Amino acid sequence: MTDPIERFMKEIEPYLIEQRRERHRYPEIGFTEYVTTYELSEQLAGKGFSLFYGTELLTSEERMGVPSDEFLKANELRALDKGVPPAFLEKMKGGHTGLAAVLDTDRPGPNFAYRFDIDALPIEESDAAGHVPAQQAFRSQVAGMMHACGHDGHAAIGLGLADYLSKEQDKLCGKYTILFQPAEEGGRGAKAIVDKGWLDDANYFLSGHVGIHDLPAGAVAAATSRFLASSKINAKFIGKSAHSGLEPNEGRNALLAAASATLHLHSISRHKDGATRINVGTLHAGAGRNIIAEKALMEIETRGETNELDAYMQENAERILQASADLYDVELELEHMGKAISTSADLEFAGVVERACASSKSLNIVPHLAIGASEDVTYMIERVRERGGKATFMIFASPLPAGHHNPSFDYEEQALMAGLETLIRTTDYLLKGDGIRAELAD
Amino acid sequence: MTDPIERFMKEIEPYLIEQRRERHRYPEIGFTEYVTTYELSEQLAGKGFSLFYGTELLTSEERMGVPSDEFLKANELRALDKGVPPAFLEKMKGGHTGLAAVLDTDRPGPNFAYRFDIDALPIEESDAAGHVPAQQAFRSQVAGMMHACGHDGHAAIGLGLADYLSKEQDKLCGKYTILFQPAEEGGRGAKAIVDKGWLDDANYFLSGHVGIHDLPAGAVAAATSRFLASSKINAKFIGKSAHSGLEPNEGRNALLAAASATLHLHSISRHKDGATRINVGTLHAGAGRNIIAEKALMEIETRGETNELDAYMQENAERILQASADLYDVELELEHMGKAISTSADLEFAGVVERACASSKSLNIVPHLAIGASEDVTYMIERVRERGGKATFMIFASPLPAGHHNPSFDYEEQALMAGLETLIRTTDYLLKGDGIRAELAD
Amino acid sequence: MTDPIERFMKEIEPYLIEQRRERHRYPEIGFTEYVTTYELSEQLAGKGFSLFYGTELLTSEERMGVPSDEFLKANELRALDKGVPPAFLEKMKGGHTGLAAVLDTDRPGPNFAYRFDIDALPIEESDAAGHVPAQQAFRSQVAGMMHACGHDGHAAIGLGLADYLSKEQDKLCGKYTILFQPAEEGGRGAKAIVDKGWLDDANYFLSGHVGIHDLPAGAVAAATSRFLASSKINAKFIGKSAHSGLEPNEGRNALLAAASATLHLHSISRHKDGATRINVGTLHAGAGRNIIAEKALMEIETRGETNELDAYMQENAERILQASADLYDVELELEHMGKAISTSADLEFAGVVERACASSKSLNIVPHLAIGASEDVTYMIERVRERGGKATFMIFASPLPAGHHNPSFDYEEQALMAGLETLIRTTDYLLKGDGIRAELAD
Amino acid sequence: MTDPIERFMKEIEPYLIEQRRERHRYPEIGFTEYVTTYELSEQLAGKGFSLFYGTELLTSEERMGVPSDEFLKANELRALDKGVPPAFLEKMKGGHTGLAAVLDTDRPGPNFAYRFDIDALPIEESDAAGHVPAQQAFRSQVAGMMHACGHDGHAAIGLGLADYLSKEQDKLCGKYTILFQPAEEGGRGAKAIVDKGWLDDANYFLSGHVGIHDLPAGAVAAATSRFLASSKINAKFIGKSAHSGLEPNEGRNALLAAASATLHLHSISRHKDGATRINVGTLHAGAGRNIIAEKALMEIETRGETNELDAYMQENAERILQASADLYDVELELEHMGKAISTSADLEFAGVVERACASSKSLNIVPHLAIGASEDVTYMIERVRERGGKATFMIFASPLPAGHHNPSFDYEEQALMAGLETLIRTTDYLLKGDGIRAELAD
Repeated sequence: MTDPIERFMKEIEPYLIEQRRERHRYPEIGFTEYVTTYELSEQLAGKGFSLFYGTELLTSEERMGVPSDEFLKANELRALDKGVPPAFLEKMKGGHTGLAAVLDTDRPGPNFAYRFDIDALPIEESDAAGHVPAQQAFRSQVAGMMHACGHDGHAAIGLGLADYLSKEQDKLCGKYTILFQPAEEGGRGAKAIVDKGWLDDANYFLSGHVGIHDLPAGAVAAATSRFLASSKINAKFIGKSAHSGLEPNEGRNALLAAASATLHLHSISRHKDGATRINVGTLHAGAGRNIIAEKALMEIETRGETNELDAYMQENAERILQASADLYDVELELEHMGKAISTSADLEFAGVVERACASSKSLNIVPHLAIGASEDVTYMIERVRERGGKATFMIFASPLPAGHHNPSFDYEEQALMAGLETLIRTTDYLLKGDGIRAELAD
Repeated sequence: MTDPIERFMKEIEPYLIEQRRERHRYPEIGFTEYVTTYELSEQLAGKGFSLFYGTELLTSEERMGVPSDEFLKANELRALDKGVPPAFLEKMKGGHTGLAAVLDTDRPGPNFAYRFDIDALPIEESDAAGHVPAQQAFRSQVAGMMHACGHDGHAAIGLGLADYLSKEQDKLCGKYTILFQPAEEGGRGAKAIVDKGWLDDANYFLSGHVGIHDLPAGAVAAATSRFLASSKINAKFIGKSAHSGLEPNEGRNALLAAASATLHLHSISRHKDGATRINVGTLHAGAGRNIIAEKALMEIETRGETNELDAYMQENAERILQASADLYDVELELEHMGKAISTSADLEFAGVVERACASSKSLNIVPHLAIGASEDVTYMIERVRERGGKATFMIFASPLPAGHHNPSFDYEEQALMAGLETLIRTTDYLLKGDGIRAELAD
Repeated sequence: MTDPIERFMKEIEPYLIEQRRERHRYPEIGFTEYVTTYELSEQLAGKGFSLFYGTELLTSEERMGVPSDEFLKANELRALDKGVPPAFLEKMKGGHTGLAAVLDTDRPGPNFAYRFDIDALPIEESDAAGHVPAQQAFRSQVAGMMHACGHDGHAAIGLGLADYLSKEQDKLCGKYTILFQPAEEGGRGAKAIVDKGWLDDANYFLSGHVGIHDLPAGAVAAATSRFLASSKINAKFIGKSAHSGLEPNEGRNALLAAASATLHLHSISRHKDGATRINVGTLHAGAGRNIIAEKALMEIETRGETNELDAYMQENAERILQASADLYDVELELEHMGKAISTSADLEFAGVVERACASSKSLNIVPHLAIGASEDVTYMIERVRERGGKATFMIFASPLPAGHHNPSFDYEEQALMAGLETLIRTTDYLLKGDGIRAELAD
Repeated sequence: MTDPIERFMKEIEPYLIEQRRERHRYPEIGFTEYVTTYELSEQLAGKGFSLFYGTELLTSEERMGVPSDEFLKANELRALDKGVPPAFLEKMKGGHTGLAAVLDTDRPGPNFAYRFDIDALPIEESDAAGHVPAQQAFRSQVAGMMHACGHDGHAAIGLGLADYLSKEQDKLCGKYTILFQPAEEGGRGAKAIVDKGWLDDANYFLSGHVGIHDLPAGAVAAATSRFLASSKINAKFIGKSAHSGLEPNEGRNALLAAASATLHLHSISRHKDGATRINVGTLHAGAGRNIIAEKALMEIETRGETNELDAYMQENAERILQASADLYDVELELEHMGKAISTSADLEFAGVVERACASSKSLNIVPHLAIGASEDVTYMIERVRERGGKATFMIFASPLPAGHHNPSFDYEEQALMAGLETLIRTTDYLLKGDGIRAELAD
């Protein structure tokens, strides 16, 4: 007799791959996932879920690093062009993207919440012959944008999970909330969802990420720890333009201030207490070759193994930015654009997931991984815990031809299958009774 | 009895001001002066000039710093939109802007050449209440573009001069060539006109610039010296992107290389032999906050009081750019984008212009000024001299509320009147006979 | 009935403190410990030890970062002045400092080796009222030199241990080698002792360090792990001097190259695989205010949690140093000055030491500590292991009023007592029989 | 009949060369010219001059950049060693070096003042075979010190002039003051002499410098203009030391602050109004390789073609130094160490000197030179002028194998002869009567 989950997995595979590739072809960056949100809603239609989006999903003011109005507007026009109905778009306008899909069985049982992030990155995808998406015709169709972090696959897993829950809904009890989160890159979207209360009554919170680690393809890490705290800031230097040949001394050079700040930010001392990170990811300055640059804009992020270490980096960064402005007698404006906190999954999941998946023929569960990335899922994990729930963040491993955020990033689609199966089996296991749930009790 | 030139000046004043403001309202940057070129041709129509443009005016390959095809194409669409006829546009396509207007009297006499540059700058114009163009409703209508160097006025003087020559054509002898040059900013257009032979048979070359110096409004400097030689280069650093949190060590940081190069370029030692300049005018790097930047592009210029001093700056700059690439293990690509040479006007013009304008009631001629700017008019001056002609570059002085290339740049329109009158009177004087012309003989 | 070790500890305390303070008063930096070596030999005289020093102790060519001949000579004169007999000095000349004291019982038994480092640092000691050495009149008497890392106490523990072994020698079996190592700072002395074979037949190697960690005073960590690998290099930039006013462009500025290198070295990217360190500890450049600096000398060190991470830092550092030379067109000379490798103590000592000290009333044994320091004792530990012995490095904890290498560094002398007692008890325990020794067998 | 001045010149030549080489062999840097001062006084003994030194010559507090007490003391011991009598030394102690030699004829006549600077530089002299001082055995005998700016020759000219005046004293009228000034390098000594009133009643002030310009050997420039104003500052950064491996984040890195300041000082923008200079001549920082550097000391100078341009450089430099301290959270202490102002000789001397030397067979007088150096003789020139006198500064030209302040600096001794003869002839000419002196009247 076949395991019904095994059977489901076989059936869902083509859909999973098709949806991943569909998303990969049409990447949208944080808070502009208008088309993605709409197409996800279309996929979920008729499956028994209540859908929530726009300000139902997010607290507007708790979003961080929202793009400029102009940029949002241009993307809204694009979305209309791509066929998003005006009424649907209206609710999302101004960067209120993402979707919550809720299946309430109305039968007593635990509340499950799942999170899948859906945004892409401003990277021009490789068109090298050996790059699989290029080879198999699902390369990004949007110039300068790319799903270079696997969120295309996350969205696909979310849809696969919805399909499973929908098909099994008569046998289930409790409530199931699938969160399709916008703007994970830069740590900008999660806090606004948390603030709306979507995690307040979750008993179990399951989430994960494809790729990342040097495990065999198809392996799944049941629980991860050591999320780096991270802060995102924009620095704007404002000086004074002048003709660089006639009167260079009359200028106040914002470009030089930014260049100097960049070097000095990267020279912040390592810290004895653990890993830290700094990156000036972008720098745009100046209006013309023979003009002393009046303006410079930098996008910066810091990370730390603990919240304290990130605070150490931030404190140094802010002092350095101000001193760099002083070096060239220019003004500084700082803007806080995103944040992720340091946390760890509930490590009891290591055992739970292992046992949940013990009967699977294909899964290879690794109990625990310490990762060194930042993720705003940490806001969700912390909220679930504060309210007495249990939370995990898994890794759906795959060998990577090139690292995350690289134009040649790609992963084996088998990882999506492993991720989905693990989520389903863990859900199934946790539903089986109080005895099992007790494993997760403190 | 009224002086006929005086009378002409009175009549032309409203037209001069109207044309200056018209140009000011619609600034176009180097090699995209499609609308400007067309509208100048319209103003010149029916006045007896033969008009030459497109590759009749410029040798295509001798232009420097031509914008990207995409940028040119976008501007060509804009020009169509603004009413430039397709056939006219066709000849200019690919950045072949500017115009030569030739009036040949077919009577023996000297060949005069005049040069007026017509391009604007990528600067957002001030909208402060006190800024005259804002106040008097001729502020730039193109976002991010501005005539912040007075070329709007240069174009207007050229039209005024054409009007005078047209009206007086029956009394004139010799040939008159008015060159409306594109892309002076960055030293990109003049060499391509020179290469086409437009200056080869000029006996007298007259040119000038509005603004610049601390002389009383209405004063005109008859001859200038000490043009700075200047070279324009673009540097592109190409590294390797990587996720800045997960594996920062895997990246090769092009943004850091560019920041470092910027600082070090500005630290090139002063030179004992005279003035030098360096400017990194723009720097654009990076694709996202949490990505180690793969690419960085810098627009750089150097200047020197002599060609040797500019060569000294270039030699140091190129070494520094390569070493900065080595610092961060990234690749460097250099592109030469423009050049102006060091020269001086024929200083005999000091006396000629003074005598030519002696009878004017309004003109205040200053014989000579040493300026410290770079101008690709130097290519024209050098060519005229090589072929035995005489050349000058004048300053049409005006107090400036803010320096050249500043968002609040402006000048008194009286300076245009003074400039035009000086050009007319000097032409008139030089026509009067061999005795006078002998003043300019070696 | 009193514990004889307890009794010994009570008796030895005044001597231990006196010797520590004696050493503290007269700090000598690496390879100039002429007076220290001689005075240690005096303390050991008549106690049954054979003493070895000079090239008996060290392989001359395996020492790293040996000071200049002039500096050594000046220190040799100083030593004569302080009363070191010429014949004794003769054997040490040229920086062959340090001492091996061997007690061979001629009875079968294990070989014990112990290591105590004896060098000081070029730091001017604090004379603040609250600084205990100043208060209690044992502040450094040598201007600019200080025992700011506790090696004064290490030497004292070594003498205390020698005293114990001497008194107990009739009851002991086996052989006891106490190594007083020169030039630990900078990782310069250990390799030369190892090369001489002193560790080749050690069954047990015991060593340690005072201070360092946030444990209660008197606590002892039995085994430490995570020594950082470290490399020490000197960089010399050689340019060309010139008068900075008359002809600044004629110089090639070594000082600017060094300044730039400093900034860029500190901007080497963090590494995903673990902790790294970089420090430009000293920079000396230039000959006069109005001279373009011809020479610059930098003392640099890198560290890494693994040998690979240290190699990553070195590789980047060397590229950056060369590129910094290129930036200013100066020459670079690199010299390798010292090295420590990454290793870990044999962690079985955790249990051994705990049991050995179980009966002590005062000792508080902490089984294991991960530290983040570099120590060339790692060369000794690795050699002992390669030859089948067992090695540990302990921490003799103390609260610190100021960190290591700080002018106000100090520690509680109680830590020396704890350290000595732990070494004695562990030796005693390991001597008691094969059964116990088996604990350390693989 | 031979010209008596010609005859004198022939006789004095060996003495002039001997004295120059004597001085070259024993260079002393500013405010430590103890031996030089004493030996000059010995040479002047018995020639009819009253000698003044110590605080008779200088106002103690108006000296700038006086070395540390320790350094002065060490040099005073050296002077005793070299045979300076204790009583003579006593008056000079604490850096009161230099000498005024006054010959008062007690006959009515003009007051002449002459200035010769006598200090050397902290440069190690070349010992290359082709370096003349090495070849001819008068290379510096003091390690690290060198007369690399020609002040050895200045002192010799002063002695030659004294010899002439002494021999001619019966035929002279008026008063003659020869000032042997200490500490010209760095602009540290002149102001203290001026303050003492030595220039207050001078009718004619003659001074000069050997070398410098590309004139034929033996040429003398009668008057110079365009002295650069200059300011000398020391910057001290004070941070906090820490162990660079254990707790790098605990340090505050003074070395990094100084390195950063160095780069940024050299990036101060060129100024439209004329030449500027900046140099960080020395940088000394840090106490050991594995210690975060607590202290860094920089010697800095700025220059400007006008006092305003030097003020522009100073203002930028001070802001940059403070901001660099802020970058690394360290303290800054600034000390003003020397200053020279911008001035010009009285250009009427061009004609006077030419006529005075017209009868010389060997002299080749160039009327005027614009130089670009800084000299604190400008304080003397300004004072003479304020009080109604006339002042010049000449160049005694020589080809140079290597520039000033270079280890291979040297000049042809013929230049000393030309300098001395010009001073004598100009003095003689100015004495001849009121008619001639009227040339210099305004």
